[in-house]
Amino acid sequence: MYAIQKLEYYNRIAKFQQNLKEAGLDAALVHANEADFANVRYLSEYWPTFEAAAVFVPANGKPVLIIGPESENYARGRSVIPDICKMIEYREFAEPNYPGIPVAHYPDVIKMSGCGSVKKLGIVSYAITPLQVMDSLKRELPGVEIVKADHVFFPLRYVKTETELDCMRRAFEISEIAVDAILNEMKPGMTEFQVIGIAQREIYKHGGEYEGHALYCFSGPRTNNAICRPIDKKIKANEIIQLNIGARVGGYSSSVGLPVSFGKLPENQRRLAEFGLQAHIKTMDLMSAGKAASAVVKEYEEWVKAQGFGQFMLYGPCHSIGMMEVEQPWMESTSTFDLEENMTFQVDTFFAEKDFGLRWENGVIVKKYGVERMSSKFMKMIEL
Amino acid sequence: MYAIQKLEYYNRIAKFQQNLKEAGLDAALVHANEADFANVRYLSEYWPTFEAAAVFVPANGKPVLIIGPESENYARGRSVIPDICKMIEYREFAEPNYPGIPVAHYPDVIKMSGCGSVKKLGIVSYAITPLQVMDSLKRELPGVEIVKADHVFFPLRYVKTETELDCMRRAFEISEIAVDAILNEMKPGMTEFQVIGIAQREIYKHGGEYEGHALYCFSGPRTNNAICRPIDKKIKANEIIQLNIGARVGGYSSSVGLPVSFGKLPENQRRLAEFGLQAHIKTMDLMSAGKAASAVVKEYEEWVKAQGFGQFMLYGPCHSIGMMEVEQPWMESTSTFDLEENMTFQVDTFFAEKDFGLRWENGVIVKKYGVERMSSKFMKMIEL
Repeated sequence: MYAIQKLEYYNRIAKFQQNLKEAGLDAALVHANEADFANVRYLSEYWPTFEAAAVFVPANGKPVLIIGPESENYARGRSVIPDICKMIEYREFAEPNYPGIPVAHYPDVIKMSGCGSVKKLGIVSYAITPLQVMDSLKRELPGVEIVKADHVFFPLRYVKTETELDCMRRAFEISEIAVDAILNEMKPGMTEFQVIGIAQREIYKHGGEYEGHALYCFSGPRTNNAICRPIDKKIKANEIIQLNIGARVGGYSSSVGLPVSFGKLPENQRRLAEFGLQAHIKTMDLMSAGKAASAVVKEYEEWVKAQGFGQFMLYGPCHSIGMMEVEQPWMESTSTFDLEENMTFQVDTFFAEKDFGLRWENGVIVKKYGVERMSSKFMKMIEL
Repeated sequence: MYAIQKLEYYNRIAKFQQNLKEAGLDAALVHANEADFANVRYLSEYWPTFEAAAVFVPANGKPVLIIGPESENYARGRSVIPDICKMIEYREFAEPNYPGIPVAHYPDVIKMSGCGSVKKLGIVSYAITPLQVMDSLKRELPGVEIVKADHVFFPLRYVKTETELDCMRRAFEISEIAVDAILNEMKPGMTEFQVIGIAQREIYKHGGEYEGHALYCFSGPRTNNAICRPIDKKIKANEIIQLNIGARVGGYSSSVGLPVSFGKLPENQRRLAEFGLQAHIKTMDLMSAGKAASAVVKEYEEWVKAQGFGQFMLYGPCHSIGMMEVEQPWMESTSTFDLEENMTFQVDTFFAEKDFGLRWENGVIVKKYGVERMSSKFMKMIEL
């Protein structure tokens, strides 16, 4: 039900091939690992685990999915790209030798794609493409010019289709169900890990395929961490418990974030949390199709400063969400893009003091005159 | 309770520095990402999420933890290495600009480490070190010789200490608790996702910090996949349901794997599953300290072939387990190491026919006269 159809994948590939032609590239190699699988799944539906993967896309010719030596049956069942080959560069990090399992090399991939000769090759997912891929490319394709080509690919993912939006809306629904279960079952004395377990149970129970990101439950002074992981600390009353819970559906991520507490928070903590929620809504109110992303950020930051809370702000207020919970483009004061209809953003409002912090997170879809909220049930201060 | 103490980390760093000296390296840069964080956590206890990380270890001087721009408070609370710096090369894959957040460069890291000049730098975790790290090293450290140095590091992780073994034993215990819950609650008509949800709930409930690997529940013809992910397929009677369930404790992974069914399996499937279990035990019986890894593999493979099952074997029967569910060294016919006491292996017995397959997995610790089984409760054929 919540899945991208084959035709949509083929449209993506066709658009990417058009971009390659316009950029003067003969082909691109698009990389994925377990932690950031998005670009490969976007083109193929293939979702690597244990191993890495890539899609070789020629400007003219057929795409080829490249996998590690153990994933052939899995890939043949999952990939919408029928041409698949195994390469040692994409094996597990533990680097087994796999004696007796035949593997391909980059010239074989080019041949399989039917694209003729490659003079200029783009690397997509440059920030996660590992060194041994480049070593092999240089050794096996001498004379080929190799360039970073993220800019030719990433914009394909910016504006979402209705099918993508349906996956995301459902992912946010499941995230809200999971938060609801936490609020019903969480008790002082539980560990942060145990709170995460409640969310995991609900995510999979309601059709999530995985977590949308490594889930957050952390509490007390550690809530001043912008990035954090849960530990075996017991949650207790009268301090902030930060929840960021995200389900994944059909490849698409989500996250719902809120600070909660058992009993009353100290006044300064409650005040910053309440202001954070106001700021969170402010960002949403500033967004609509046609607006410059940098203007949203600047207006937001000026407003926060004018309210006297500028010193508690780490960075600004929105990043794209889609296959990854955090993806390009971010909204920053340095951004150069305008918001477009059906771009999807995670409004991500983090304020921190020395010994506590809090984060409100909800997803929105940019519309002509504002935003559609993909989650909004927990945009309120909750003292349990 | 199940955590590595500071002193053990410092011993690891000291041993690694000794290895660097012996290898003629002035320093090493050890990389981690979200999917394979092991080498950085092994040295620092820091466990990145969203961002990447590295540890710069000089042969003489202080190690420096390198993180992305958002993780400072998190890292200061978690890392046993006190010297920490932020670099843009380790930011989130979405590549935000972070205007206003100051970042360091590799010469700053070298200075912070107090090691003087670096002429020869080793790269550890080469298979996951991304291109932009090498680009920056070459730009910022011209004239420095950069070499792959995995061999100087990975052997540190081969033989486990008692503390590490305690983490692993507990992780396997929790995995067995999770499998037990699945066997009690799983019903035909549930989706593969929902089965995973049961395991996730139990892992966190009993003190697991995360899954030990992306959990497996897949069923029917897809059990011929050596690597796979669950989908929203409903499980049903009289076909193999493959479970591989692993908890993570104190950084250490585990996995318990078994094929189960509702009602009777077709005779050929049951026969291969039962043979698989015999083969699984055979591998364990072949292992003891002092034995050549390649000998275990060759004796195992000859035995399987002699029993008439050679054509169903994809690859051979053991890989190391520790911080990663699959880590170096693998046992292969090409292996050149001998088993040592307190090496930990995942006995991983996979057999596949055209339209089904099965995998038995349990962890063992190599001892003088055999192995200690870290899990063994589910080494039996289960028809529910």
